Amino acid sequence: MLNCDRELLNSIDFEKGKGLVPVVVQDEKSGSVLMVAYANREALEKTIETGYAHYYSRSRQKIWKKGETSGNVQKVKRILLDCDSDTLLYVVEQEGVACHTGEYSCFFRTLAEREDE
Amino acid sequence: MLNCDRELLNSIDFEKGKGLVPVVVQDEKSGSVLMVAYANREALEKTIETGYAHYYSRSRQKIWKKGETSGNVQKVKRILLDCDSDTLLYVVEQEGVACHTGEYSCFFRTLAEREDE
Repeated sequence: MLNCDRELLNSIDFEKGKGLVPVVVQDEKSGSVLMVAYANREALEKTIETGYAHYYSRSRQKIWKKGETSGNVQKVKRILLDCDSDTLLYVVEQEGVACHTGEYSCFFRTLAEREDE
Repeated sequence: MLNCDRELLNSIDFEKGKGLVPVVVQDEKSGSVLMVAYANREALEKTIETGYAHYYSRSRQKIWKKGETSGNVQKVKRILLDCDSDTLLYVVEQEGVACHTGEYSCFFRTLAEREDE
């Protein structure tokens, strides 16, 4: 269970994304960005109630608890809301790995890089 | 100018988001998540060509260079692609602040927090 600012919760703009907001997930210790998923209001409420990250699957069209089958759960330490009230940041303690490929973070492929540094 | 893996670039799934992918922006030094914006292929190509972050504005429906008017540009050090090939991570050196409110990061409001720690 997380302590929640209900006024701030009610200010979230779910409409812009047709009921969903993107959620950036960051590892509390390393600061690594682990993944991006989506939440509707219900998934966010379940995250706040249980203290574990829940999302909304756009392909399966249902709420899912991260790690429910794999065991790779995310204990949520803090949830931040951005200035536009349309994006969330979950700061988590990751059990196991975040990526379904077995990598720790979903961002493990370098697309482009600055040469001179 | 960034060195780019063109094969990986061509594998990006822009279709899922109707031509756009979300871009998480992370500060290279502090590891802070600064903001989330959106890019189409052209905005990404401009970012790679110039080495400075470009996005696509959904409200104004055009490409914009971050900091073009404010001076708060983002020098891009590295671009990562996630496992699903539908989300980007720009690792940047932020000039000034990232948020239009004057805060360093757009994620400056705490929505919920774990009590016991």
